Amino acid sequence: MKIKEIHEEGKVSVKALITKCDRGRTNKNTPYLSLTLEDRTGVLDAKFWNLTDEMVAMYHVGMVVEAQGEIIFHKNAAQLRLRKLTEDKDADLFDYVREAPMTKAEMKAEVDSMLDAMKDPVIRDVTREVIQASEEKFYTYPAATRNHHNFVGGLAYHTICMARLAKAVKALYPWLDEDLLCAGILLHDLGKVEELSSPMLAEYTSEGNLLGHISIAAAMIDRVALALDLERDERVVLLKHMVLSHHGKMEYGSPVLPMIPEAEVLTLLDNLDSRMVMMKQSIDATQPGTFGPRMFALDNRMIYHRKEEER
Amino acid sequence: MKIKEIHEEGKVSVKALITKCDRGRTNKNTPYLSLTLEDRTGVLDAKFWNLTDEMVAMYHVGMVVEAQGEIIFHKNAAQLRLRKLTEDKDADLFDYVREAPMTKAEMKAEVDSMLDAMKDPVIRDVTREVIQASEEKFYTYPAATRNHHNFVGGLAYHTICMARLAKAVKALYPWLDEDLLCAGILLHDLGKVEELSSPMLAEYTSEGNLLGHISIAAAMIDRVALALDLERDERVVLLKHMVLSHHGKMEYGSPVLPMIPEAEVLTLLDNLDSRMVMMKQSIDATQPGTFGPRMFALDNRMIYHRKEEER
Amino acid sequence: MKIKEIHEEGKVSVKALITKCDRGRTNKNTPYLSLTLEDRTGVLDAKFWNLTDEMVAMYHVGMVVEAQGEIIFHKNAAQLRLRKLTEDKDADLFDYVREAPMTKAEMKAEVDSMLDAMKDPVIRDVTREVIQASEEKFYTYPAATRNHHNFVGGLAYHTICMARLAKAVKALYPWLDEDLLCAGILLHDLGKVEELSSPMLAEYTSEGNLLGHISIAAAMIDRVALALDLERDERVVLLKHMVLSHHGKMEYGSPVLPMIPEAEVLTLLDNLDSRMVMMKQSIDATQPGTFGPRMFALDNRMIYHRKEEER
Amino acid sequence: MKIKEIHEEGKVSVKALITKCDRGRTNKNTPYLSLTLEDRTGVLDAKFWNLTDEMVAMYHVGMVVEAQGEIIFHKNAAQLRLRKLTEDKDADLFDYVREAPMTKAEMKAEVDSMLDAMKDPVIRDVTREVIQASEEKFYTYPAATRNHHNFVGGLAYHTICMARLAKAVKALYPWLDEDLLCAGILLHDLGKVEELSSPMLAEYTSEGNLLGHISIAAAMIDRVALALDLERDERVVLLKHMVLSHHGKMEYGSPVLPMIPEAEVLTLLDNLDSRMVMMKQSIDATQPGTFGPRMFALDNRMIYHRKEEER
Amino acid sequence: MKIKEIHEEGKVSVKALITKCDRGRTNKNTPYLSLTLEDRTGVLDAKFWNLTDEMVAMYHVGMVVEAQGEIIFHKNAAQLRLRKLTEDKDADLFDYVREAPMTKAEMKAEVDSMLDAMKDPVIRDVTREVIQASEEKFYTYPAATRNHHNFVGGLAYHTICMARLAKAVKALYPWLDEDLLCAGILLHDLGKVEELSSPMLAEYTSEGNLLGHISIAAAMIDRVALALDLERDERVVLLKHMVLSHHGKMEYGSPVLPMIPEAEVLTLLDNLDSRMVMMKQSIDATQPGTFGPRMFALDNRMIYHRKEEER
Amino acid sequence: MKIKEIHEEGKVSVKALITKCDRGRTNKNTPYLSLTLEDRTGVLDAKFWNLTDEMVAMYHVGMVVEAQGEIIFHKNAAQLRLRKLTEDKDADLFDYVREAPMTKAEMKAEVDSMLDAMKDPVIRDVTREVIQASEEKFYTYPAATRNHHNFVGGLAYHTICMARLAKAVKALYPWLDEDLLCAGILLHDLGKVEELSSPMLAEYTSEGNLLGHISIAAAMIDRVALALDLERDERVVLLKHMVLSHHGKMEYGSPVLPMIPEAEVLTLLDNLDSRMVMMKQSIDATQPGTFGPRMFALDNRMIYHRKEEER
Repeated sequence: MKIKEIHEEGKVSVKALITKCDRGRTNKNTPYLSLTLEDRTGVLDAKFWNLTDEMVAMYHVGMVVEAQGEIIFHKNAAQLRLRKLTEDKDADLFDYVREAPMTKAEMKAEVDSMLDAMKDPVIRDVTREVIQASEEKFYTYPAATRNHHNFVGGLAYHTICMARLAKAVKALYPWLDEDLLCAGILLHDLGKVEELSSPMLAEYTSEGNLLGHISIAAAMIDRVALALDLERDERVVLLKHMVLSHHGKMEYGSPVLPMIPEAEVLTLLDNLDSRMVMMKQSIDATQPGTFGPRMFALDNRMIYHRKEEER
Repeated sequence: MKIKEIHEEGKVSVKALITKCDRGRTNKNTPYLSLTLEDRTGVLDAKFWNLTDEMVAMYHVGMVVEAQGEIIFHKNAAQLRLRKLTEDKDADLFDYVREAPMTKAEMKAEVDSMLDAMKDPVIRDVTREVIQASEEKFYTYPAATRNHHNFVGGLAYHTICMARLAKAVKALYPWLDEDLLCAGILLHDLGKVEELSSPMLAEYTSEGNLLGHISIAAAMIDRVALALDLERDERVVLLKHMVLSHHGKMEYGSPVLPMIPEAEVLTLLDNLDSRMVMMKQSIDATQPGTFGPRMFALDNRMIYHRKEEER
Repeated sequence: MKIKEIHEEGKVSVKALITKCDRGRTNKNTPYLSLTLEDRTGVLDAKFWNLTDEMVAMYHVGMVVEAQGEIIFHKNAAQLRLRKLTEDKDADLFDYVREAPMTKAEMKAEVDSMLDAMKDPVIRDVTREVIQASEEKFYTYPAATRNHHNFVGGLAYHTICMARLAKAVKALYPWLDEDLLCAGILLHDLGKVEELSSPMLAEYTSEGNLLGHISIAAAMIDRVALALDLERDERVVLLKHMVLSHHGKMEYGSPVLPMIPEAEVLTLLDNLDSRMVMMKQSIDATQPGTFGPRMFALDNRMIYHRKEEER
Repeated sequence: MKIKEIHEEGKVSVKALITKCDRGRTNKNTPYLSLTLEDRTGVLDAKFWNLTDEMVAMYHVGMVVEAQGEIIFHKNAAQLRLRKLTEDKDADLFDYVREAPMTKAEMKAEVDSMLDAMKDPVIRDVTREVIQASEEKFYTYPAATRNHHNFVGGLAYHTICMARLAKAVKALYPWLDEDLLCAGILLHDLGKVEELSSPMLAEYTSEGNLLGHISIAAAMIDRVALALDLERDERVVLLKHMVLSHHGKMEYGSPVLPMIPEAEVLTLLDNLDSRMVMMKQSIDATQPGTFGPRMFALDNRMIYHRKEEER
Repeated sequence: MKIKEIHEEGKVSVKALITKCDRGRTNKNTPYLSLTLEDRTGVLDAKFWNLTDEMVAMYHVGMVVEAQGEIIFHKNAAQLRLRKLTEDKDADLFDYVREAPMTKAEMKAEVDSMLDAMKDPVIRDVTREVIQASEEKFYTYPAATRNHHNFVGGLAYHTICMARLAKAVKALYPWLDEDLLCAGILLHDLGKVEELSSPMLAEYTSEGNLLGHISIAAAMIDRVALALDLERDERVVLLKHMVLSHHGKMEYGSPVLPMIPEAEVLTLLDNLDSRMVMMKQSIDATQPGTFGPRMFALDNRMIYHRKEEER
Repeated sequence: MKIKEIHEEGKVSVKALITKCDRGRTNKNTPYLSLTLEDRTGVLDAKFWNLTDEMVAMYHVGMVVEAQGEIIFHKNAAQLRLRKLTEDKDADLFDYVREAPMTKAEMKAEVDSMLDAMKDPVIRDVTREVIQASEEKFYTYPAATRNHHNFVGGLAYHTICMARLAKAVKALYPWLDEDLLCAGILLHDLGKVEELSSPMLAEYTSEGNLLGHISIAAAMIDRVALALDLERDERVVLLKHMVLSHHGKMEYGSPVLPMIPEAEVLTLLDNLDSRMVMMKQSIDATQPGTFGPRMFALDNRMIYHRKEEER
């Protein structure tokens, strides 16, 4: 059974990946596990009660399991009371993780065609080199550990969505430098391949916490520009400026504010794509005619799922 | 001579509109005038020294004049020292004001085609009625008294630019309600036809200061919906919500925050269009390779005009 | 037994209204209910353990019940461990809700006498019409869902208290327009009759969340003024201004700030009455010589209940 | 001629007090004086051109002068171009300063009757002693150097206005401690007698800048309580708390926030009285139907002077 | 066994002080205790299940106990499941509390030598008198109830550390007044002897909450200066200024900002010493190569414990 | 005559450097110059009236001149009315600029001895290489364009002062890594050699505005580490972290907050040294017993110059 097929209480068996695995003990000192299970179709909370210390030690994050038990509904959300939990050692973890709606090949083709379309050789060469140096990670890492685009390929997919919007912006304001705008979009979050630990089950690395993906990406550009003997070219300075300023405000971690229009477009499109995804996720999890939970990443707003009958 | 043709010091004669007219007296108690002159091509500061009280009383804002004198450059900006200033009573004030790059007819055609394309009858009818009730003003008023789109037709032109961007956003997120999004954009700033005093030389009205264009536009929608017996329809509530929330933050004067994705798109596109225009204005007034002045409406940022040779 | 009569541990039987009803399951998967019970004299937390799914489904918010069980004290607060819980279908819910210290008739008489005392016919007529259009709700709705005046009639009672204070303010500053001040007070929170769902057990409506009571009340005034052909009268604009600005700061949801003295008085008296009630509630629930809990609605302050012996 | 009688351009002679006296030199290196003149009826700007260094040295703040010259209107405000300026050594400076609308004797009588009405002997004795220790200054000092109550007796008058409002508040919330509330009001700004330099022409003292009137007043209470052997009495602690917390927010200089209802009433009535006075001043200086200048002390608001005909 | 010697699960017996003692009841209505135990070497959480009401009533904060039970690890932290808990009535509570790394005698000697070294008689005499008036408490009270220096003698120890740093600052900026700087440091937190309740198990007093340690310390200086007839001496005003301004920002509770360099040094050294201690505590409780928990008192930062091998 | 020797009005002749040179025209359209003159002893404002366009074009920033004219005092500050202004083409500009109180050789010796004392080879080698790559600029550039250390050698001198304070901090907290702390201090502001334009008469470069000295310095470290094959070494990451976090708050331009104690010490000592210098400058320019002007870089504080007689 797939997770998204679960709609009612009763016995189930699902094959899924453990993405969270917390140990606990009841008041009576009996060990138990509090788990999050994921497959490509969704996410499920599970509890495994009345274990021994030996059993508790058998399970960990990243393990693919056959999970059997009973679904109950607790505060309108499904929860699995586990009866049996067996590792499937032959399973391929990649079959159980959520992924971008485009394949890696599709995303690479779209990015390559953007690079090929650039007319400015300096911008094109620097951007291409920086992406190539992290290519494998660029197409598999998520764009965040939670909130939005937190799936395999999320980083490249988020980038591509922004680049598509940028074309419409360029059409309205033809005086914008399309090569610079597109390059800035392609590189703006690339530092996340060092800030985060892995394509799946990503956590922040120590380097990621200490430096931040903004400074990491600026260094990636600097290294390539130095190797190409372009570190004094103004276009390279502007590319670094776009990456450094893309959080839009100093209190969000940008050491400088956007001072060229292309940098301003970048920060607004970044907000637009990430917020559309978060709002859609909230609406999909909410009944029509009601509001979802307050979301910290949306300034604590509740999102309204409008009534169906009136659309 | 047109204002934009002024490039060097020396004698000139220009025909222009007085848009600012401040009276003063020198230390020696002699009256003088400090003026702003505009024609369709630009803006020029002027000083008229050594006047009498009678002469000072002859000039006022909104007068078209033949201005003769000498151009000097003061802090890198041209200034006209007036020798003679004659009213041209036959001139049509409208020949001297800056206007949107589209004609009123072109703008009306584009708005009408948007309305015709709406599939939802409630949204279409309410939006059409609200615009019709202020049609003359909608196509002639500016979008602001300064900063951006402060010219005849600026309100409709700003609205149309946002609507064009909205089409690209809809293409990427097809689950958005295009009718609602387009209607929200068309109505979001319509309250400015009451908040401001006139198409040209606009000032804030008392009602504009006391209520604000956000509440004024919400009332306009309410009245039409009441007349159409639609005031309880959820689509009308959502339209009002989009108008009320379009400043994006409470401290910017929105009494509620955007709670539906269409409202979030509205506020981001509003920022995008207004900031592109302000940044372009700054760049056009700045030498390549230098930064423009700090701009209050852009969080006190200076905008960089990049070097020409490298584009 | 009345709730306020409960002072010690032991068996009790109370008749009360269910105002909160959360379902849960223990670690052992047994269903239980976590309830809030209210009668006119107070509020009581209750737990009903060891239920079946059928029993859990029998109870809901708004039901009047006969509750039997045992009182225990948990963190200095009484809690009822239920043994038996029976619906009383004949009971009138209104007998069990908390109410304003004035009757509806008394409040209506006081409001009517204020209206009769107004000398300005425009202000009087508009105010009277707006109140009449929501009269039933105005005298029964609460002023909030929690924090202060969250009881039947709270909205009108809060309004009347503010109006009484306004008389003293007018006496000290005789140049204030008493009619305008009184009208602004009477109308300032009237939008709550749409923002909230009901006199008792009130929740926020969708329209309430999307528009806010401030914009709702402004629309109420606008509709009446339109019907009376007074929508351009400055006194109507000022009334709307008072309602729109009464939260005092933009970040609290007012789209404009108070720009006339009567509006400033309104916002200060609103703060005064609501804070007095919240502080009194905190003091009544706190031992002399100690501080109450931090209160979010009071900027996270703790309120001090001073020592008895020294008064 | 009195200052308030000046309505048109032309020659005048006024007897007034110099309250500001700045020296300058024109571009041509000629000394001049820029003065502010005040009498009991108003304030007047004046310029004295073409002086010698000897003449410039003759005039200073606090001098009563006979001023002769010509009134001109500069930016809608009257300005006096001086021709002759003679000191009147026999004049009594006190005849030329603005004063509270109550006499010192009236104010003292009202304060004394408040003290006599106090039932709590600790509060009464401490308050009486603290006021007596600064009595002369309490009835003559202003409440501020500008903005509001910046006239002789302003401190006592502001205090008395607040105390009158407090009676109405007590009537509505009878559980408040009237003695404590009244005592807190009487003492809250008393530190200004050390923070400011004099009843007229007041400036901040060094001690005033370094300690602030809040801490100065707390020390005044502490000294009296110590002398009366009451420094451990809770009522004394509460009185100090009211003084310390009366600015209402830490960022306005209160080291603690109001934690008793009496302290909250104090801070709200302080705001009410000072804002009413500032708003009235703005309205009196503004034409009906227009807005006054932005006022820093009112969060940068403009105040609206409503149209006359509609009142 | 000492608390810091506990490294693994299994049976233990420790002698310790109860510093937190919360009563609870399980779902089954059985009483239990949730305790914090401390000895000089560390802190340990403990649970005592399945008690009777009589047993629960036997234990309270401040009792020294012999605690027997079993250590388990819950979320990587040791927890003691109690089997037996016996009061040791002969134990001296002081043998079980954490203390400063200097003895009281050592601290007093260092403070006295600082006082003796002061050349300015006014500063020296006032400072000495103020400290003597609270001497016993100054050397035993903590500097805070948690976060940093929350141990016996913490107040004096924190003060001494700051004074040592001040010597280096004076060496670099010889124009600073060393006596004033040292005196300000010695007195800046002295108000904590009234703000907190006791050397051990300290809580905020009512007076502490209502006045704050800043105002309390200012009053202490004022009383001594008055007794020495020095209350008008500028050095006394500057000392009070240093105490009042030492939180560095109004929103942190300082009614005035530092306006002399010595006050600025004081606030920066206060931050330096308190943050070093908090960061060291976090690092000591964190594994190398990982980050500690977010700390509210450090602006919500996580502190990094760098990898061992690379030092 | 040296600038600091000017104490009274009268004729003077000074040899000095032009550091500001603004052109203007009087109301009568006559050109004039408004100049700032500096020599090693101080700064002097000057006006040169009644010029021709040819004369105005002769002078510019960076020129050494013989200036003759008359000193007058305007608002208590000396101003030079120029009569004659002659360029001295043989003068060495460096003889007229203000400099650090240590020679370049002394500063280099102190920095080299710090580097030699480092025990950690990775930290030592990276730090030494980064400084060597900008050595000439490091010892000549200022630390800022105004406010503090805005003189030749200011950057190195500010760095050395901080390093001296760091030794005292290390003495008190011996668990700090002295090599890391010292290296972070040496490198923290090094990006200013690219952010600013020159040792004297420095302005912000375009790259400086677009990237900021924080990101520039991080790139400098990155390049050296890459060349030494140390870019993955944790010590290099920590050095970059210290540079990135040294402004202490995100809103001051640090993309990450200090997460190791050495980074916290760095930001506090940076504040300490810069504020001591700004406060001393204010005191030196203020009369005893008075307050200096409000200083933007000190949170708008006025600094008090205490009375002399009492020290």
